[in-house]
Amino acid sequence: MTAASLPVVVLAGGVGGAKLAHGLALASAAERAAGAPGLDLTVIVNTGDDLEVHGLLVSPDLDTVMYTLAGLANPDTGWGVTDETWSASAMLERYGAPVWFRLGDRDLATHVERTRRLRAGESLTEATAALTAALGVPARLLPMSDEPVRTEVETADGWLEFQDYFVRRGHRDEVLAVRHRGADSARPTAAVLNALSGAGLIVFAPSNPFVSIGTILAVPGMLDALMASPARVVAVSPIVAGAALRGPADSMLQSLGGEATAAGVAAHYARRYPGLVDAFVLDTADAGAAAEVGSLGMEPMVTGTVMRDERDRQALGAAILERYGPAR
Amino acid sequence: MTAASLPVVVLAGGVGGAKLAHGLALASAAERAAGAPGLDLTVIVNTGDDLEVHGLLVSPDLDTVMYTLAGLANPDTGWGVTDETWSASAMLERYGAPVWFRLGDRDLATHVERTRRLRAGESLTEATAALTAALGVPARLLPMSDEPVRTEVETADGWLEFQDYFVRRGHRDEVLAVRHRGADSARPTAAVLNALSGAGLIVFAPSNPFVSIGTILAVPGMLDALMASPARVVAVSPIVAGAALRGPADSMLQSLGGEATAAGVAAHYARRYPGLVDAFVLDTADAGAAAEVGSLGMEPMVTGTVMRDERDRQALGAAILERYGPAR
Repeated sequence: MTAASLPVVVLAGGVGGAKLAHGLALASAAERAAGAPGLDLTVIVNTGDDLEVHGLLVSPDLDTVMYTLAGLANPDTGWGVTDETWSASAMLERYGAPVWFRLGDRDLATHVERTRRLRAGESLTEATAALTAALGVPARLLPMSDEPVRTEVETADGWLEFQDYFVRRGHRDEVLAVRHRGADSARPTAAVLNALSGAGLIVFAPSNPFVSIGTILAVPGMLDALMASPARVVAVSPIVAGAALRGPADSMLQSLGGEATAAGVAAHYARRYPGLVDAFVLDTADAGAAAEVGSLGMEPMVTGTVMRDERDRQALGAAILERYGPAR
Repeated sequence: MTAASLPVVVLAGGVGGAKLAHGLALASAAERAAGAPGLDLTVIVNTGDDLEVHGLLVSPDLDTVMYTLAGLANPDTGWGVTDETWSASAMLERYGAPVWFRLGDRDLATHVERTRRLRAGESLTEATAALTAALGVPARLLPMSDEPVRTEVETADGWLEFQDYFVRRGHRDEVLAVRHRGADSARPTAAVLNALSGAGLIVFAPSNPFVSIGTILAVPGMLDALMASPARVVAVSPIVAGAALRGPADSMLQSLGGEATAAGVAAHYARRYPGLVDAFVLDTADAGAAAEVGSLGMEPMVTGTVMRDERDRQALGAAILERYGPAR
């Protein structure tokens, strides 16, 4: 980064967070190609979805953001690596190991190497820095905390671990409540606090407000650090035209007492975290809700938010930067 | 096993041990197909070559014997699994991990699952039983000990860990001495002691007498258990016509003060473990050394010992059983 690079911090879950972070990275590269200073990009990633598989720590959201920014993400699945093979999984299944959480061979290498580093005494922040550096990721990826936090959801069948609900049961259960096990004793890392206090712009990715953004905000001290940051907080709606682009954010909004609309997300943020979100980005399909968003005390911004390809990602990143990036 | 199955115990290193154990298993299956009771086969395997790779416990000799008996061994390499892919290794290399000890994807699954079981509190014996059962291995595979023993060799460059010497440096260094780190505090497992005390026949595979058979015998209590066993001990020469069929047994015999011949192996056993070996199997190419073997107090048996294919393996197994298997 040059002295004048804009420090941008993204709060991210998996696919939506990965795409928006990628869009900002692409916008930054384009700025630099044009002689501008670009961004100093940090992504604070939800680790509440983490789980142990085959004795290895798997961090699905960190991996999705890492693979996406490294150009390795599988475009068809939203998880895992492109050009993947499945030999280890077939052998693990032969050994009787549970393989419902599918791990390809290249992906498995990530979990093996991460777990080796953690067992050798590195923090998750340090291990993530090593992995992302090796893959040439053009951003600083930070787990929200080095302490384990595990999201659980309450359903008619009781409390379920997040991936049990999300992957194994295909997020078909109605979610009655969400809790974040371990959050009470977790803390934002020093790197996270530094990034927030030095941020020039903070963006909430179009990730699930309960189990992605909400998990990050459940880490004690995180909300205070965000409120204390000099940067504006811009949240991007994960709901477009009344439906989540991916995952269960829409049904969660309903079952948890809200409305499955973009304005419903804004209302959730306003109610749950008063004064936190300064601006709210709505898709053009939801332009009619701009006034309602404004009435919640957030500045509405209407633009195309659906990121089908890299051009869409970059366009959304550039649009947010153009409107909310301080003059550089 | 039926009541009359012959309890046969093989002491084995890697490839030579795997082939002979496979030959005995094939001979047992042929006996059973003909209505005879067959064998109750146990293989006590050297674990002095074990090492940690990517934070996972790799047990090369256990794996070679397991894959061979499961019909999964790669016939071209002498290690690893057939129909292998290499995606994880390529990714691990990208992460900067050392990949000189090559692990294919299916093989990696073995190390992941074994390590998971060990970390969950299973012994290596228990983990091995689970893996071999899953692969349908027709024998009881027993690590020589559940405590770690690590073979090291002294070279002109000092003491080297075994796989550093064997794989990374291609066993080109002259070996001046061998030691077994951890052996003093290791013990044969209860399963090993049971197998030896109940054996009807004990066979030393054509494995390296210093770093395979010698490592097993270096575990305190192992030699006593072998001497106390009622079974005859039959050793198969790993040297044929003055050369090791595989690996550095021949050059080790010379550098450690012996002769790189089949008789030299017999002399090593006689000198180092007096009274242990009752019979010694020489290849037909070494028939001329039978008298010399006899003069060492061992009964010489001359037969084809080179196991190029499964027929050779079965023939050697059947020949040993015919001569030394007690009447059943």
